[in-house]
Amino acid sequence: MINGEKNIENPIRWGMVGGGRGSQIGYIHRSSALRDHNFELVAGAFDIDPERGKDFGVNLHVDPERCYADYKTMFEAEAKREDGIQAVSIATPNGTHYEITKAALIAGLHVVCEKPLCFTTTEAIELEELAYAKNLVVGISYGYSGHQMIEQARKMIENGDLGDIRIVKMQFAHGFHSTAVEKNNASTKWRVDPKVAGPSYVLGDLGTHPLYLSEVMLPNLKIKKLMCSRQSFVKSRSPLEDNAFTIMEYENGAMGTVWSSCVNAGSMHGQTIRIIGSKASIEWWDEHPNQLRYEVQGKPAMILDRGMDYLYSEALIDDRIGGGHPEGLFEAWSNLYSRFAKAMNAKDRGETLEDVWYPGIQAGVEGVRWVENCVRSADNGAVWVEYQ
Amino acid sequence: MINGEKNIENPIRWGMVGGGRGSQIGYIHRSSALRDHNFELVAGAFDIDPERGKDFGVNLHVDPERCYADYKTMFEAEAKREDGIQAVSIATPNGTHYEITKAALIAGLHVVCEKPLCFTTTEAIELEELAYAKNLVVGISYGYSGHQMIEQARKMIENGDLGDIRIVKMQFAHGFHSTAVEKNNASTKWRVDPKVAGPSYVLGDLGTHPLYLSEVMLPNLKIKKLMCSRQSFVKSRSPLEDNAFTIMEYENGAMGTVWSSCVNAGSMHGQTIRIIGSKASIEWWDEHPNQLRYEVQGKPAMILDRGMDYLYSEALIDDRIGGGHPEGLFEAWSNLYSRFAKAMNAKDRGETLEDVWYPGIQAGVEGVRWVENCVRSADNGAVWVEYQ
Amino acid sequence: MINGEKNIENPIRWGMVGGGRGSQIGYIHRSSALRDHNFELVAGAFDIDPERGKDFGVNLHVDPERCYADYKTMFEAEAKREDGIQAVSIATPNGTHYEITKAALIAGLHVVCEKPLCFTTTEAIELEELAYAKNLVVGISYGYSGHQMIEQARKMIENGDLGDIRIVKMQFAHGFHSTAVEKNNASTKWRVDPKVAGPSYVLGDLGTHPLYLSEVMLPNLKIKKLMCSRQSFVKSRSPLEDNAFTIMEYENGAMGTVWSSCVNAGSMHGQTIRIIGSKASIEWWDEHPNQLRYEVQGKPAMILDRGMDYLYSEALIDDRIGGGHPEGLFEAWSNLYSRFAKAMNAKDRGETLEDVWYPGIQAGVEGVRWVENCVRSADNGAVWVEYQ
Amino acid sequence: MINGEKNIENPIRWGMVGGGRGSQIGYIHRSSALRDHNFELVAGAFDIDPERGKDFGVNLHVDPERCYADYKTMFEAEAKREDGIQAVSIATPNGTHYEITKAALIAGLHVVCEKPLCFTTTEAIELEELAYAKNLVVGISYGYSGHQMIEQARKMIENGDLGDIRIVKMQFAHGFHSTAVEKNNASTKWRVDPKVAGPSYVLGDLGTHPLYLSEVMLPNLKIKKLMCSRQSFVKSRSPLEDNAFTIMEYENGAMGTVWSSCVNAGSMHGQTIRIIGSKASIEWWDEHPNQLRYEVQGKPAMILDRGMDYLYSEALIDDRIGGGHPEGLFEAWSNLYSRFAKAMNAKDRGETLEDVWYPGIQAGVEGVRWVENCVRSADNGAVWVEYQ
Repeated sequence: MINGEKNIENPIRWGMVGGGRGSQIGYIHRSSALRDHNFELVAGAFDIDPERGKDFGVNLHVDPERCYADYKTMFEAEAKREDGIQAVSIATPNGTHYEITKAALIAGLHVVCEKPLCFTTTEAIELEELAYAKNLVVGISYGYSGHQMIEQARKMIENGDLGDIRIVKMQFAHGFHSTAVEKNNASTKWRVDPKVAGPSYVLGDLGTHPLYLSEVMLPNLKIKKLMCSRQSFVKSRSPLEDNAFTIMEYENGAMGTVWSSCVNAGSMHGQTIRIIGSKASIEWWDEHPNQLRYEVQGKPAMILDRGMDYLYSEALIDDRIGGGHPEGLFEAWSNLYSRFAKAMNAKDRGETLEDVWYPGIQAGVEGVRWVENCVRSADNGAVWVEYQ
Repeated sequence: MINGEKNIENPIRWGMVGGGRGSQIGYIHRSSALRDHNFELVAGAFDIDPERGKDFGVNLHVDPERCYADYKTMFEAEAKREDGIQAVSIATPNGTHYEITKAALIAGLHVVCEKPLCFTTTEAIELEELAYAKNLVVGISYGYSGHQMIEQARKMIENGDLGDIRIVKMQFAHGFHSTAVEKNNASTKWRVDPKVAGPSYVLGDLGTHPLYLSEVMLPNLKIKKLMCSRQSFVKSRSPLEDNAFTIMEYENGAMGTVWSSCVNAGSMHGQTIRIIGSKASIEWWDEHPNQLRYEVQGKPAMILDRGMDYLYSEALIDDRIGGGHPEGLFEAWSNLYSRFAKAMNAKDRGETLEDVWYPGIQAGVEGVRWVENCVRSADNGAVWVEYQ
Repeated sequence: MINGEKNIENPIRWGMVGGGRGSQIGYIHRSSALRDHNFELVAGAFDIDPERGKDFGVNLHVDPERCYADYKTMFEAEAKREDGIQAVSIATPNGTHYEITKAALIAGLHVVCEKPLCFTTTEAIELEELAYAKNLVVGISYGYSGHQMIEQARKMIENGDLGDIRIVKMQFAHGFHSTAVEKNNASTKWRVDPKVAGPSYVLGDLGTHPLYLSEVMLPNLKIKKLMCSRQSFVKSRSPLEDNAFTIMEYENGAMGTVWSSCVNAGSMHGQTIRIIGSKASIEWWDEHPNQLRYEVQGKPAMILDRGMDYLYSEALIDDRIGGGHPEGLFEAWSNLYSRFAKAMNAKDRGETLEDVWYPGIQAGVEGVRWVENCVRSADNGAVWVEYQ
Repeated sequence: MINGEKNIENPIRWGMVGGGRGSQIGYIHRSSALRDHNFELVAGAFDIDPERGKDFGVNLHVDPERCYADYKTMFEAEAKREDGIQAVSIATPNGTHYEITKAALIAGLHVVCEKPLCFTTTEAIELEELAYAKNLVVGISYGYSGHQMIEQARKMIENGDLGDIRIVKMQFAHGFHSTAVEKNNASTKWRVDPKVAGPSYVLGDLGTHPLYLSEVMLPNLKIKKLMCSRQSFVKSRSPLEDNAFTIMEYENGAMGTVWSSCVNAGSMHGQTIRIIGSKASIEWWDEHPNQLRYEVQGKPAMILDRGMDYLYSEALIDDRIGGGHPEGLFEAWSNLYSRFAKAMNAKDRGETLEDVWYPGIQAGVEGVRWVENCVRSADNGAVWVEYQ
């Protein structure tokens, strides 16, 4: 890419639910969707407070009439317009994802949803079937998966550079919630309330991120059984966990581990994934995403840098600036939104996309399924459970 | 910031000269200027080939009538429109910066120009005086200077955290031109042609970047004299250098060094700046821009991370996403374009901006001056020269 | 220390079993024991081949008459001499440690033994009781534990710098045995033969190292239960494992994990320990042992360097050279042998050592006990087992 | 090596001048010389205070009669003994090196001397001629040069792995003397007194270390001219410098730089050397000596680790322990002393050593010469001077 003008023919008419004033996640959705003119923000139900939401939307140059009080009103009103929205992004608390996604799909809208998609596998499969039936895209915002070095990792594994895969070692373990910060922080408080956050805290909020990276890199790997031990080191968070260890056995005999934690004191993110094969390992760290460590047994360790000709060509097509210059989280998200646009466009034309993957409804389902299995194991005494 | 909606009231009507199809630098200008709705791209003379330029502009949703064959036509035509451009960004080869900037200023346009502003201090001062006379902003795209950790460094020094400053150690030394790659690469070829590139290659193209970082961090430091030794390790580049060492003595007795190189084989960028004081040092590396190393003599070395509360508040206001998540070059550029917009807006209202700095015309002048002094030293046998 | 002359009054008369020609471990025992004149090598049964052993000993200036054909002969002959050995180091394959240690203790000799001390907790406790009854030192060569930064970690935890300890994360995971290298390598072959190596490979050979570091740093932490999942990725190694994951619950509610592996392709050692408390974490990596990472939540991460005045005084007393200069594995071992000498000397005088810890018989017992519990868990389907 | 028993037939009878109680440098000489039984410490004039020196020697098991009051007495007395010393190590303040080395050579003794060998090139050449005339070894303790990765670097360059060498970038820049610590520290005080320390502080004390590494790696590189700028940031140190920048032009057109500093606040050592060729660069850092960074332009950066089979065989022969385990400064020194022993042994037999290099008298001469040229340049206004 490099020159970054990868528009589809006509930008997709796009609305948002949530993501209003003060929302970090709302900004990153907009910044990424609008980056390459693939989406046009034309409507929104940005805030639980309608006035504040309208103010916010107007400031973003959204027509005041299309700044709605709630998502139901928006879906209804937009459906009546010739130029109504084609897609909606959902950036609301976890507990509302299911109902809004369902309503959007019924309204015939493509969806980009924050994970978790919902709280139960049953609900997730319902949404999956609905999306297939309506032929609509549901994109899940696993932002880091859009980084070029993830694509490089995927191709290296596919091409056998690592040999047979034996171990997948994952973690997302930060330290920001080492104390009960939620007591004085509304934006954290809901995360430890099962009614709003669902059946888990760090498993769903953190662990699913590297888990999805493993799904991207290793699309054929299937979990056979797992065990999960979870803790609430800050007691008031119980029954939700602030730390969890998961061990997985895959169907082909490979093993995986995920460490999910928000009490890893002093760690900024600690999101890493290491794939170990019979010949070599690769390791990626989200805080320094432009590098991928490649260690062939018996050879000097190598550091692969984004943008370099020695990478697989698939890892170069999303570059916006030459190697050496740091790209960051926003570029990864923008890459995803660009693929969402292509996928939505293709669906609308009745076409099938080849050679473009993105975190879709299946990624959403799998995240929910994994959390459900982890919780089932943990709540039965951290026993091994068959993966369902 | 965090939620990133920092628009000025009305976006600035904005055009581009150069930066068309296949231009990496053109993309980053647009991506940064448009990021936060501070600019609106309404005109352009994007390409030396008018048809190709129009195609390109139309693809960016620029009115075909406002896609011009050249900058002169654009300035003339836009001046006649009520809704004509207020600002222009110049992303053309070095040899044209002077004349285009001059024409833009005469046409009453704010300017954002790639460095070098021009080839001689005389020309640079002429532009500076013109900009002052016309009360116009000239922004220079020293993109990395917009990164929040540079602001943190600036405040640390200002607040005396390092003690008295003794040594400023700078380098921008990559290895991509270790061989004569320009022989088969048009986009590199002009850089080693004095007619197009000016009196230097790496001094101007690379060395001025960390030099400007030092000007931001140490606004009161004045060079008293310097010596520069330059080499053309790839012989065909002579008289332009592909490597240079510069040593500077500042008026207060501090010392500075700059290593500029494109033959540092195997290095990606190698742009670093280390400021050494009587109490402590700080060090920043553009390839991992979210970290700033802080070493107090006799204490454990510290790694400061972007977005953390322990930073000076001035280093937090431009954050678009929380700490731990990597921001990159695009965010740094966007921060600069945001300040350019504020500065242009203030100038237009006849106001003076307090508390906002940006790489302005003076930065452009100082870069040209430094290269001129370096070349004068080098071409006289790498002798010490009084700084003029 | 710094000037490194920390001899006890009279060097201990010392012999070796094993560790002859071509033995890396033999060299490090001798190099460490003789470093500071605390031991004098006066006898040995260096080799299973008596002639080769004598040759070897003579080359080390051992009296040919005191180069014995086997350990039994040595213990018997030396016991008859006025100047007979007081201590013996055992550097033979795992399967012989128990019988030789037992014989040495019965012969009234202090012992330094490679881990594992033996194969079963029953045997281990028998040796422990024998050592107590005979008032003899049994040192276990957990070499890395002698490094000064381990002492620093121990004091930091003791002094509450980390707050309440929540998680202990350990690993020793190298990649050298990613393939069946043992097929052509006698010195590796025995490690995967249960008869010679005991009930485990990597759990005992690798995992016990960081486990012992945790025992040093956290002497009051007691394992309540654990689960262990082990694999033989190189099939021919079965039933011995080349990879294992262990999760431990401590009696106070803290959690621990140990990753033991020799198939972590491309990793050199990968021996790390991270201790996570409610306020801060520390992390140490054996490949760069002079640094200790200290991360206080909400503060910049710090890198503590060996030899610096800001360390606890206990972490400075073993320094042989100033900070900045790298000390390595040999210094860590030498520190241990120095403590072994002091301990032996004190025992001989009937004194009790205050303020000197070393990996003693209890460390040997605990390593065996941990492996036994891990194997019991793994062999029952990786279930949780009460720690016995 | 690995098993570390590389004795020459008969240990060399060895004495020391200086290096007594509290001397860090004395300890490292003894620890290294005695490590592999190549030397036997049989005499010494350890201290300026004869009683204290005798005490110290006796504690090291030196015959009290051979603990001398001063070096003259020692050389005279030992010369009369059949079993008199064959070699002497000199670990006294700089100002005494010349006279003691000269006396030792005249007395027919091999010498190991701390750098600087003396203060002027004239003296240095006198010693060089004397050593040649007497057929004696003079070893200079550039300890880091004994590390295996330096040997690896040397072979890589010799074999053309880097292409044509263009730039040698060196520094030894620590921060321990950022303030006037010498005011309260006798062991530092003499270093800034020209009468005792000679014509320079950091150039001689620090800069000559990486300079010597460059001589080892690039034996054919000859300095043609240089310029040096030196500063006394702590004013009371004047005329001796605490910081210096040196730029060198080699006869073949390559360039070199050396940054020597003790005011690089917060840096532990900062001793690095980077060799840049037309194809690739290598970089080594003394604080993590087991790794060598190897960057081939256009390929992923590689990290070479000590002890691995992919290294040149010459870089493996000094290994004392397998790769992954950290060797440190003591092993590097021990490697040098081992070579000193071989060289002394060969000289005594009238043999010539092939394939063994060590920092000999020429290294001593070159260090003195370099400092002299640097000072001449600096004291004439940091002008370029022809190298003499």
